[in-house]
Amino acid sequence: MKKILLLGAGRSAASLIKYLLDQAPAENWQVTIGDISIAHLQPVVAPLAFARAIVFDVHDPAQRAREVADADLVISLLPAVFHIEVAQECLQQGRHLITASYVTPAFLALHQQAQERNLTILMEAGLDPGLDHMSAMAVIRRVKEAGGVLSSFKSYTGGLVAPESDNNPWHYKFTWNPRNVVLAGQGTAKYIKNGTYKYIPYHQLFRRTDGFYVDGYGYFEGYANRDSLSYREPYDLLGIPTMLRGTLRRPGYCQAWDVFVQLGLTDDSYTLDNSETMTYRSFVEAFLPPATEAGQSIAARISLYLGIPVDGEVMQKLAWLGLFEEKPVGLAGATPAQVLEKILKEKWALSPGDKDMIVMQHQFIYNLNGEQRQISSSLVVTGEDEVQTAMAKTVGLPVGILAKRLLQGKIAQRGIVIPIYPELYEPVLEELKGFGIDFVEKEMVPSEHLGVPG
Amino acid sequence: MKKILLLGAGRSAASLIKYLLDQAPAENWQVTIGDISIAHLQPVVAPLAFARAIVFDVHDPAQRAREVADADLVISLLPAVFHIEVAQECLQQGRHLITASYVTPAFLALHQQAQERNLTILMEAGLDPGLDHMSAMAVIRRVKEAGGVLSSFKSYTGGLVAPESDNNPWHYKFTWNPRNVVLAGQGTAKYIKNGTYKYIPYHQLFRRTDGFYVDGYGYFEGYANRDSLSYREPYDLLGIPTMLRGTLRRPGYCQAWDVFVQLGLTDDSYTLDNSETMTYRSFVEAFLPPATEAGQSIAARISLYLGIPVDGEVMQKLAWLGLFEEKPVGLAGATPAQVLEKILKEKWALSPGDKDMIVMQHQFIYNLNGEQRQISSSLVVTGEDEVQTAMAKTVGLPVGILAKRLLQGKIAQRGIVIPIYPELYEPVLEELKGFGIDFVEKEMVPSEHLGVPG
Repeated sequence: MKKILLLGAGRSAASLIKYLLDQAPAENWQVTIGDISIAHLQPVVAPLAFARAIVFDVHDPAQRAREVADADLVISLLPAVFHIEVAQECLQQGRHLITASYVTPAFLALHQQAQERNLTILMEAGLDPGLDHMSAMAVIRRVKEAGGVLSSFKSYTGGLVAPESDNNPWHYKFTWNPRNVVLAGQGTAKYIKNGTYKYIPYHQLFRRTDGFYVDGYGYFEGYANRDSLSYREPYDLLGIPTMLRGTLRRPGYCQAWDVFVQLGLTDDSYTLDNSETMTYRSFVEAFLPPATEAGQSIAARISLYLGIPVDGEVMQKLAWLGLFEEKPVGLAGATPAQVLEKILKEKWALSPGDKDMIVMQHQFIYNLNGEQRQISSSLVVTGEDEVQTAMAKTVGLPVGILAKRLLQGKIAQRGIVIPIYPELYEPVLEELKGFGIDFVEKEMVPSEHLGVPG
Repeated sequence: MKKILLLGAGRSAASLIKYLLDQAPAENWQVTIGDISIAHLQPVVAPLAFARAIVFDVHDPAQRAREVADADLVISLLPAVFHIEVAQECLQQGRHLITASYVTPAFLALHQQAQERNLTILMEAGLDPGLDHMSAMAVIRRVKEAGGVLSSFKSYTGGLVAPESDNNPWHYKFTWNPRNVVLAGQGTAKYIKNGTYKYIPYHQLFRRTDGFYVDGYGYFEGYANRDSLSYREPYDLLGIPTMLRGTLRRPGYCQAWDVFVQLGLTDDSYTLDNSETMTYRSFVEAFLPPATEAGQSIAARISLYLGIPVDGEVMQKLAWLGLFEEKPVGLAGATPAQVLEKILKEKWALSPGDKDMIVMQHQFIYNLNGEQRQISSSLVVTGEDEVQTAMAKTVGLPVGILAKRLLQGKIAQRGIVIPIYPELYEPVLEELKGFGIDFVEKEMVPSEHLGVPG
C-alpha cells in the first residue's frame, strides 16, 4: 500500500482528487486530503475506505510533520507561497513532493539536499507551468531527432470561458485565482527575437500582443510572460534566435486591460487613503487628471487622458463593468489592485452551468533539409461543469499521472525536477488522451502568423 | 567647547564644511570631518587647530562608537541608507543628530526612545526636504495668523543648471546624485486636488506636469513628488482641498524623460542579460518592438512605438545624447537604470566653470476676508563655482545654522524633529539672507497658473 497526502482541496484540485480516488483501488493507494476547509469533501470520501479528509493547517508544525511522515508522497496544491515549507518538511521526513508551481530560487537551493536524500521534488507539473513544457518538449524532441533546427518557438496558454458560456464583452471570466489575474504581468517580460534580447516593461505589455488563430475556436491574442529566456536551457534551446512564452486572451481584452494598467488600477504596492468610501466611479476618478471642463463625463476624461475613442469597444468594456457608476466598493484599507479585483469578481464570476476553456498553442519554425517549416500544436479543453473545469482537469490530471508514475517507481530523476524528460512526459501525454486532452498539430503557412510579434 | 562630528564630505557637504569652519572659532567648536575619502580635505583643515579630517567607515562599529561618543552633535550627510545606523549609535551614546534626509518609518520608530533620552534627531533639514518646509511654513503661519484660510498649496523644487551654463537641449545637468535623478519618481505619486485624492503611477508621472513662471528666470514645469498627502499633518493643513509637492525642470525635459520611462530604461529591478556587449543604440533597441520594415531607423521606430514626431524636439534630445549611435556602453551585469545613468553622466556632467541653480516656488491660494488671494514665494540660488554650488549651499547652510542653534541650546524639541516650528525656521531663514538665499513673494493673478494641474 502507498500513501498519498494531497494538501489543498480548492477549486483547481477537483480533477486531481477524482483521479486519485478513481485510481486508488487498483493502485492500492491510501489517499489523505488536507485542507483548511473540508466540508465539501466529506460526502465524497466518507463512503471510501481508502480515503479520508482532514482539516490541515500548513502552519501547524506538529500536524505537518505527522502527516508528511505518514505519507509516501506529498502533493501540494496549496497557494505557491506555502510550498517551500512543505518541501522542507518533505526533506526532513524523506518524502517525495509534487507541485504545479514554478521552481523558485528557494527551491533550487534544495536541489542537492533532495538528491542526496534520494528524493524527487517534481514541480511545474500542472498546466502552465506543466503541460506546456511536456507538450512542447515532445515536439521539440521529435523535430530535433528528425534533424530539424528550430529557429523560433512561441508558446501561449490561456484560461478562458468556453464559447457557449461567453456572454460578456471582455470574453473573459475568472476560472482561477482572480488576484493572480489582476497582478498578471507585473515586472518586466523578457524574451528573444531574431537573436536580440527584448524587454517589455509592464506598462507596455498589453500593447505588444501577438494575434493568432486556433482551428474551430477562432482568434486569440497573446502577451509575453515573465522570463522566457530562462527556459532556453531546460528546453535545450540555447542559441534559438526567437523564443517567447505568453498568456492568451480573446482579441480586445488586452487593449481594454491596458486602460487599467495605464490608470494605475492594478497597483498592489500601496493602500488607498479612502477605499472604504470609494465608489466604482470615484475609484477610477482618483487616477484621472482633473476635468478640463465642467460636467465632463468620466468616459470623456479617460478618452482625453489615454487617447481612447469615447464610444469605442474599449470604453464599452469599461462601462459594462460599471466603472462609471456611483456604486460603493465597500473595501477598507485596500490597494488599487484589491479594489479592481473586487469589482471584476462581481462581473466575471462563472454562473451556474458556465463552462471554462483552456487554450494552448505552441508555434515552431524550424529548418529541415534546407527547407523552412512551421508547425503549430494546439490544445483546447472545455470544462465539463463548474467542478470538473478545464482548468481543474489540465492542472490536476498531469499531476495525478506523474504521482502515479512516481509511486510506481518509474521516475528516476531526483532533486528538483520539471517534466521535460521523455520518460516523464510521454506517459502523461498518452494517458491524457483518454481524458480528451489531446494536442492537434498542423503545418502553418506564414500568413497564419497574424500579429507583429513582440 | 563643543564638538561636532560631520559624517560625509562629498560634493553636497562643501558649503556646510565652510560654514562650520568659519563659525568654529567664534562658537568655540571642535570640528571632526569623517569620510571614506578625505584627501581633498587635508589642505583645508591642516592649518586649523580646531578641525581635523579622519578616514571614517560607518560600518566599523568600534570607530563609529568612539567618534560618536566623542562628539556633542553628529551631522550626517552620508547616503541616506546609512543614517539609521548612525542614529542608533547616537541614541546609544546619547548624542544629538542632524541629517538632510527624509524621515522614514525606521526613524519614526526611534522617536520615543530619543525623547526619553532627551535627544534631538533633527531631519529633513537641508534643501528638499528642509528649506522647502521652512519657507513654506513661514508663509502658511503668516497667512493663518492674518485670518486667511488656505485652499491650495503647491510647492516645487528643482536642482538645475544656471542659465549661463545651460548649453544643452535638455536644459539639465547633474548637480547631485545621478542615480537618484534616474530613479526619481518611481512608485506612485499621491496628492489631493479639490478635495479628491489623486494617484499618479510612475508611467504617467512625466506626462502630468504643471507649468509656471519665475520672474527673471522664465518658465518651468513640475511633476508630482512621492506622497504629498503625508505633509498635511506636519504642515497643519489637514483638510486643505489641494496640496502637491513637486520637482521642477525646464519645459520639455519631462516629455523627453517620459520616453525613457515608457521604454523601460529607468528600471532598476533586474539585470540586462547582455549589457557588457551593448551599444547606446542596441540598449534602446532592446526595448523597442521589432522593426516593421527593413532599414527602419531607430528614431522612426521610437516615433511609431510611442507616437512622438520623428523630427521633433523630443527626438532631438534623444539624438543629442547619442542614443542612436553604435557607441559601446561598457558596463557588465547592469540594470537598465545603471546603463542609462552611465550614458547620461557623459553628457550631463558639469564642465569646469559651470554653475548650477536651485529654484523653489511655493504657490498658495487662500481666502482672506471673503476674498481669494494667490501668492507665490520663490527662491533662485545660483552656484558660485563647482565647489560652492547652489545645491551645496542650500543643503548645507540650513543644516549648519540648525546645528549652531542646537549647540547653543536654542532648540528645545526632542525626538524625531523636522524644521516646521517657527523657533527652528525663523532664525534659519533670517541668517540665510546673509548668504543671498532669500525668498521673493508675489501676488499672483490667476493667468499665471499656466498648466492644467495634475
